[in-house]
Amino acid sequence: MAQVDTERFLKDLNELRKIGEFKTGVHRPTFSAEDMESRRWLMDRMREVGLEPSMDGIGNVFGRHPGPGPHLLVGSHIESQNQAGWLDGALGVMAGVALARAGLPVDVVAFADEEGHYGSFIGSRSLLGILEDSEIDSLKNRYHGKPLREALREAGLEGLPRPKLDPSRYKGFFEMHIEQGTQLESQGLRAGVVTGIVAIWQFRLTIEGMQDHAGGTTMAERRDAGLTAVRLLSRVDREFPLLCGPRTVWTCGRIALEPGAPSIIPGRAEVLFQFRDIDVPTLERLEECLTRIVQEMNRTERTTTTLEAMSRSKPALCDPAMQAALADAATKHANGQWQHMPSGAGHDAQYMARIMPASMLFTPSINGISHHWAEDTKEEDLALNIRIMADAAEAYLRG
Amino acid sequence: MAQVDTERFLKDLNELRKIGEFKTGVHRPTFSAEDMESRRWLMDRMREVGLEPSMDGIGNVFGRHPGPGPHLLVGSHIESQNQAGWLDGALGVMAGVALARAGLPVDVVAFADEEGHYGSFIGSRSLLGILEDSEIDSLKNRYHGKPLREALREAGLEGLPRPKLDPSRYKGFFEMHIEQGTQLESQGLRAGVVTGIVAIWQFRLTIEGMQDHAGGTTMAERRDAGLTAVRLLSRVDREFPLLCGPRTVWTCGRIALEPGAPSIIPGRAEVLFQFRDIDVPTLERLEECLTRIVQEMNRTERTTTTLEAMSRSKPALCDPAMQAALADAATKHANGQWQHMPSGAGHDAQYMARIMPASMLFTPSINGISHHWAEDTKEEDLALNIRIMADAAEAYLRG
Repeated sequence: MAQVDTERFLKDLNELRKIGEFKTGVHRPTFSAEDMESRRWLMDRMREVGLEPSMDGIGNVFGRHPGPGPHLLVGSHIESQNQAGWLDGALGVMAGVALARAGLPVDVVAFADEEGHYGSFIGSRSLLGILEDSEIDSLKNRYHGKPLREALREAGLEGLPRPKLDPSRYKGFFEMHIEQGTQLESQGLRAGVVTGIVAIWQFRLTIEGMQDHAGGTTMAERRDAGLTAVRLLSRVDREFPLLCGPRTVWTCGRIALEPGAPSIIPGRAEVLFQFRDIDVPTLERLEECLTRIVQEMNRTERTTTTLEAMSRSKPALCDPAMQAALADAATKHANGQWQHMPSGAGHDAQYMARIMPASMLFTPSINGISHHWAEDTKEEDLALNIRIMADAAEAYLRG
Repeated sequence: MAQVDTERFLKDLNELRKIGEFKTGVHRPTFSAEDMESRRWLMDRMREVGLEPSMDGIGNVFGRHPGPGPHLLVGSHIESQNQAGWLDGALGVMAGVALARAGLPVDVVAFADEEGHYGSFIGSRSLLGILEDSEIDSLKNRYHGKPLREALREAGLEGLPRPKLDPSRYKGFFEMHIEQGTQLESQGLRAGVVTGIVAIWQFRLTIEGMQDHAGGTTMAERRDAGLTAVRLLSRVDREFPLLCGPRTVWTCGRIALEPGAPSIIPGRAEVLFQFRDIDVPTLERLEECLTRIVQEMNRTERTTTTLEAMSRSKPALCDPAMQAALADAATKHANGQWQHMPSGAGHDAQYMARIMPASMLFTPSINGISHHWAEDTKEEDLALNIRIMADAAEAYLRG
């Protein structure tokens, strides 16, 4: 069996944690100085374990195994959400390095911008050949508006090639990731073999009203965009539970009222809203409901609401043979302490699943915390899961 | 009778409009370069009409009449909301200049920061002697966070004295202002004699939840601060109409969700909420309702909501004799085309009313638009109202 060096795996993760350190987490937004430093640091680690490192024109870091196949592809992402956790993404990349160090024939990849500072999975989509230059031209940073082209230029990536993956090189893709929930922890479990990744459907609701003085305008005269936002979201809150599936989630992550002053009736509101499920008919039912609520708002309110679909991803099912290899290894190392489970979060694996067998392994998240600097997983669980993945990878390559 | 030069009044207003011009309105935030330019411009106009101009340590511009009394105080403010109208505030200040030019014994004042970029009526409160240095130390700009002390230093006002008004000098205070609503326009009226100014009670609601991943956290596990904000405001929307008075207004001008990203459950929400009425028992009833809603949210939601009263102003009733003088002049110049009405907006007059008789005269707002660059009043209505105010001032001084 492949002997994975768990001590070294944890040491590497803790070293990476120092780049962009923020409290007990990290702040490494895509193409920031800290993010680029982490990518260069990763290339050094790849070189150490005998891989041939390179960075492409969208920031993907790739470590190519020089030996004969069949190969596996192993990885995740290395940038973080703002002021977020040390393991989200980094764990899956360093798991790849650990497997390579153990002598397994793996290529390791850190997909650029999985966290969506600039776009939607631009790193993995570039490797699939489904990211057009025109899309790169149009993207801007979600927080500070810097154009992606400018960020790529500043990061020294302008003009570098964006090669496509050759799926024939790989027997499959493994991604280790934190659970980002409490299902494992609340049941006292230590590993999760992922059955599939939910689809995410994202929407922007724009509400146009009339900006007006909060004292001089009677309630009857108002065209309050903020009030329409509240009424609309309140209706979603009442109707979605009657239509959703057992594991559906829906989230309003942003409500922006303009101009945002205490004595001015908001003339405009922007709402970001999304829902997630593994079942497409459920997603379609919820979008119908949202569309109907918007139509009703436009009948009953003195404002105009526009619903715009920003993205509709597809659910991705994990490969049964890879799941079986992970399940066998999990039983060997942690019998009775693991389960099969879906992934509520989107991951690069959902794009890899389009061109090769793909699978994921989840580690417990302490208190379920994610996208926050307090995110963490016990070191003994990290060590357990790298053993599970190494054994599963070896068995799957043999099988 | 005093002969007011309406042409010159309109010419002055249009000249002032060029300072910080934005589309058809102005952008003159408190202590910005444009605001300070307008204050210096105003001092020149005061000098022209024989007043002795000065600026105090909080930015109030004062034009003192050199002759014998009894005097009137006439004015309003000269800075604007961001990208807002050309008449809001400026109209009342230039009405004072027009009355002084007509030979009436008036002091003219432009109160600093009525629009609240830094605080709540800091200009008029300073003139009343109820603005402490410690409050000045603590205030910051609402939009960009610059400390008030720093803004005063940059504006060259640091260390200047902040004299108090001597109420014994004045027989009363007149303030002309745009209506900021559609009551006059919708009834085809051209002037409004104000009966009183509503009180404004302002609150900040802070909701603490748990920032979490929007995919990995089930609906049952969430502590979504944004969802609590929606539920709370939705309940206000249902309950306030059952408790309010005939002219009560309530407004949520800002909802800020943190961190504000589409795939992150908001861990914190801040809501700015206010209501206005001329009747204190109504205001107390609404605050009780709001407090009860917050208590219920803290019982039923997995978040913690804190309600903080930011300010509770007092309603200010206008002086009956001054109202009568305005009503007589309005009848003379526009018989059947004016009405008595309350002011839904707060004004410096409410502070002047604490130390002397005070009154206000409203001009119609085209389409009721206010706090927006499209705000406007017909020039013939501006001319009509300056005639009404000049006659009323003269009659009130005689009476």
